[in-house]
Amino acid sequence: MSKILTNRNDDYAQWYNDLILKSGLADYSAVKGCMVIKPHGYALWENMRDELDKQFKATGHQNAYFPLFIPKSFLSKEAAHVEGFAKECAVVTHYRLKNDPNGGGVIVDPEAKLEEELIVRPTSETIIWNTYKDWIQSYRDLPLLINQWANVVRWEMRTRLFLRTTEFLWQEGHTAHATHEEAIEETKKMLEVYATFAEDFMAMPVVRGVKTANERFAGAEDTYCIEALMQDGKALQAGTSHFLGQNFAKAFDVTFQDKDNKREFVWATSWGVSTRLVGAIVMAHSDDDGLVLPPKLAPLQVVIIPIYNNKDAESKPKIDALATEMMATLRKQNVRVKYDNDDNTRAGWKFAEYELKGVPVRITLGARDIEKNLVEVARRDTKEKSNYALDGIVAYIPELLADIQSNMYQKALNFRTENTKMVDNWDEFVKILDEQPGFISAHWDGTSETEEKIKELTKATIRCIPLDSKLEEGKCILTGNPSKQRVLFARAY
Amino acid sequence: MSKILTNRNDDYAQWYNDLILKSGLADYSAVKGCMVIKPHGYALWENMRDELDKQFKATGHQNAYFPLFIPKSFLSKEAAHVEGFAKECAVVTHYRLKNDPNGGGVIVDPEAKLEEELIVRPTSETIIWNTYKDWIQSYRDLPLLINQWANVVRWEMRTRLFLRTTEFLWQEGHTAHATHEEAIEETKKMLEVYATFAEDFMAMPVVRGVKTANERFAGAEDTYCIEALMQDGKALQAGTSHFLGQNFAKAFDVTFQDKDNKREFVWATSWGVSTRLVGAIVMAHSDDDGLVLPPKLAPLQVVIIPIYNNKDAESKPKIDALATEMMATLRKQNVRVKYDNDDNTRAGWKFAEYELKGVPVRITLGARDIEKNLVEVARRDTKEKSNYALDGIVAYIPELLADIQSNMYQKALNFRTENTKMVDNWDEFVKILDEQPGFISAHWDGTSETEEKIKELTKATIRCIPLDSKLEEGKCILTGNPSKQRVLFARAY
Repeated sequence: MSKILTNRNDDYAQWYNDLILKSGLADYSAVKGCMVIKPHGYALWENMRDELDKQFKATGHQNAYFPLFIPKSFLSKEAAHVEGFAKECAVVTHYRLKNDPNGGGVIVDPEAKLEEELIVRPTSETIIWNTYKDWIQSYRDLPLLINQWANVVRWEMRTRLFLRTTEFLWQEGHTAHATHEEAIEETKKMLEVYATFAEDFMAMPVVRGVKTANERFAGAEDTYCIEALMQDGKALQAGTSHFLGQNFAKAFDVTFQDKDNKREFVWATSWGVSTRLVGAIVMAHSDDDGLVLPPKLAPLQVVIIPIYNNKDAESKPKIDALATEMMATLRKQNVRVKYDNDDNTRAGWKFAEYELKGVPVRITLGARDIEKNLVEVARRDTKEKSNYALDGIVAYIPELLADIQSNMYQKALNFRTENTKMVDNWDEFVKILDEQPGFISAHWDGTSETEEKIKELTKATIRCIPLDSKLEEGKCILTGNPSKQRVLFARAY
Repeated sequence: MSKILTNRNDDYAQWYNDLILKSGLADYSAVKGCMVIKPHGYALWENMRDELDKQFKATGHQNAYFPLFIPKSFLSKEAAHVEGFAKECAVVTHYRLKNDPNGGGVIVDPEAKLEEELIVRPTSETIIWNTYKDWIQSYRDLPLLINQWANVVRWEMRTRLFLRTTEFLWQEGHTAHATHEEAIEETKKMLEVYATFAEDFMAMPVVRGVKTANERFAGAEDTYCIEALMQDGKALQAGTSHFLGQNFAKAFDVTFQDKDNKREFVWATSWGVSTRLVGAIVMAHSDDDGLVLPPKLAPLQVVIIPIYNNKDAESKPKIDALATEMMATLRKQNVRVKYDNDDNTRAGWKFAEYELKGVPVRITLGARDIEKNLVEVARRDTKEKSNYALDGIVAYIPELLADIQSNMYQKALNFRTENTKMVDNWDEFVKILDEQPGFISAHWDGTSETEEKIKELTKATIRCIPLDSKLEEGKCILTGNPSKQRVLFARAY
């Protein structure tokens, strides 16, 4: 069978694009920088969304929905925010089209010009804090714990399916608190929700850390993040949780009366993950034959494929009945399973197709095997095939799915451990980035100038200051100036 | 206690707005015509969405996601579609802001003008059929059964919370078929999904019908609809399902190779319901004290409220323990229940608040009642209060919820029956519309001219030709010209 995908080692970027397109996760669209999320990709995102939503609700958050459009003037209200966000975005200037008097379809009606332009939200802090002003009067209205599932638009010049698209889907939590401490606690709590979701569901180990001032969210006092390592040794920021201090409360004049009847500004957090996580799953686990999806999130966990004995007309009804029963039993155990007995495609074609789509487990029901009370089970992660006794198979599958889930995590963790190096020498730093990229734990003198210089020289950025980073005297990898702890460098998506 | 809401009979429109705002369903926003869906409203929409999504999947549909933006030229490709949709919409003309050199915040960067303007989707037929062109080659690719949950924007001059807003949330199904018959069947199947959802979940009886040519979706060959009657006697279109013929396939050149190797244009349907349904639920059932929500969709189904005996310090822990146990048992039966033992508000205030929010059942745990093995149960729909034996209460609640659900449906059905009149005389037609509005079943001569004249004279429109309308000779209510069947008139939202 001819290879469907480019090999990862030949051209990682091409492999990724091939894989996204051919496995049916997404497609390009007619609108520059925007993609179409296809059913397989959307089902994966739905599973992620549903699990995250459950965890948001379990931690006391409620969903709401705020307008897509933001009045232009709102963006200027928070000084740092406007610098970071008000630049590359979609601007609505008119609200009507009309027939072209010259017969060329429709044209923008110049008379329908908006008095104030509207921005398609790149993120919603401004419109939400403008609303919170009306919702928050007293300490009794706090904390306000709200999340929104929405689409956002950031006009990107260089886009990449799932990783960086002009429009993307995400969730954005926006919470309001009476005290500094409580807001910090919320920021960290949601970072931990993201981190455990990444590890337990995406099977993707992450480093929990805090961003340097350079890499902070525009308008935040502190940005916490989770960073993952992809198979090409590049880092990917997988989620962020921001402590916003009182910046947005001050910009939008949101105050509350505390228990002592004093007016205070409200403390804020915001936190988000996006469809970028679909790209992260793909890059963290997949191989040259296709997607490898963690069972907990895979749209389809098990596929059953029949191999009828052509010489024996009796085998078909027997196998079909067996598969139907097997499916029913697995579904009772909440396993997402499909029986593919389409006669128009050969078993070999099906094998390749479900491998491409990343289905964790394949069960083959062969006429001759069944006579011997055997079925073949193939696991997608290791590509191992084994024969199992037919009668024990449905009890075995949930165990196997759990094993695949933990094996995928362990494999990704081993990869990260092997590709995280402690480096104290500039030449080695540069050499590793070029020859064996991964995370580099190194000393840094704490200045933005040095951080920028390193980026300029190597394209590596400080991904984060890991939360578990110990204080340790050292010398900055570039300047040799004194440093108190190591930070994590990498080239990043 | 002072009335929170305007009475329905005094000012129905004001009652509706008061209710939406004060019950916490939605709020106005800083962007003209756009609203904020608040947590209570969003939770109601989530319950509707989840149930509909389940039914879409059960009927073989998959979710996907297409871009928010549509190139302007796409809208002109289907002649009727451009007339209906390409007019009042949000137009993106620029992709960048910059700092105002005069220091006035940010301004639109004139150099970042798009070559072709982008329209914020008012509906997605054009961008989707442009994509289907690449996805459909052969009869094996059909049917293609896709749904999208998304936000859409239609620039409305006169808006109304939930019923008509510039941005709203909806789902839009877009399916592609090999034959005319199959597409018609799909159109009707999805109409029936909507109709049974409205009746079984929203407790809202609907008339299934087909629109006249005047009221058809722009680009459709036939528009099927469900129409409901609100408490003020106005009709509300609650969902539409369109048979699009080959119009979009021809506009976007989407063909397939059939089994005989011939190239044919693909047949299409589209169908949608929106957050407008939240407005429909409110208008169909609620009363002067607040929302009345059908139990199957209510975010909260049961609230338990304690009334401690102030003279008796022992009653609090006893009631709290009882309530906790009750909640646990109800939750096991999938009842959405909350125990409100907030000490800061009085029981009377809580009663009014949960009535306003439409919680179907209230259980009051009073210290003295409990001693007599009694609890008070109040149902929101009829406002009846009864005492029940404490030991049987948790078994009784699910039955009560089911009874409320069917009672609400029956009440709405009775209302519709009483307010649907068969009319054969023009003066009576006009009089009823003014004095006792509702559905009017009357003869119509089948011409657009007459339909428009009736609308001009009375503001009543033909809501639909009911699917169960029998053929019957008659004379047009306005012109006296011959007619073959009755159609349904009403003033509408």
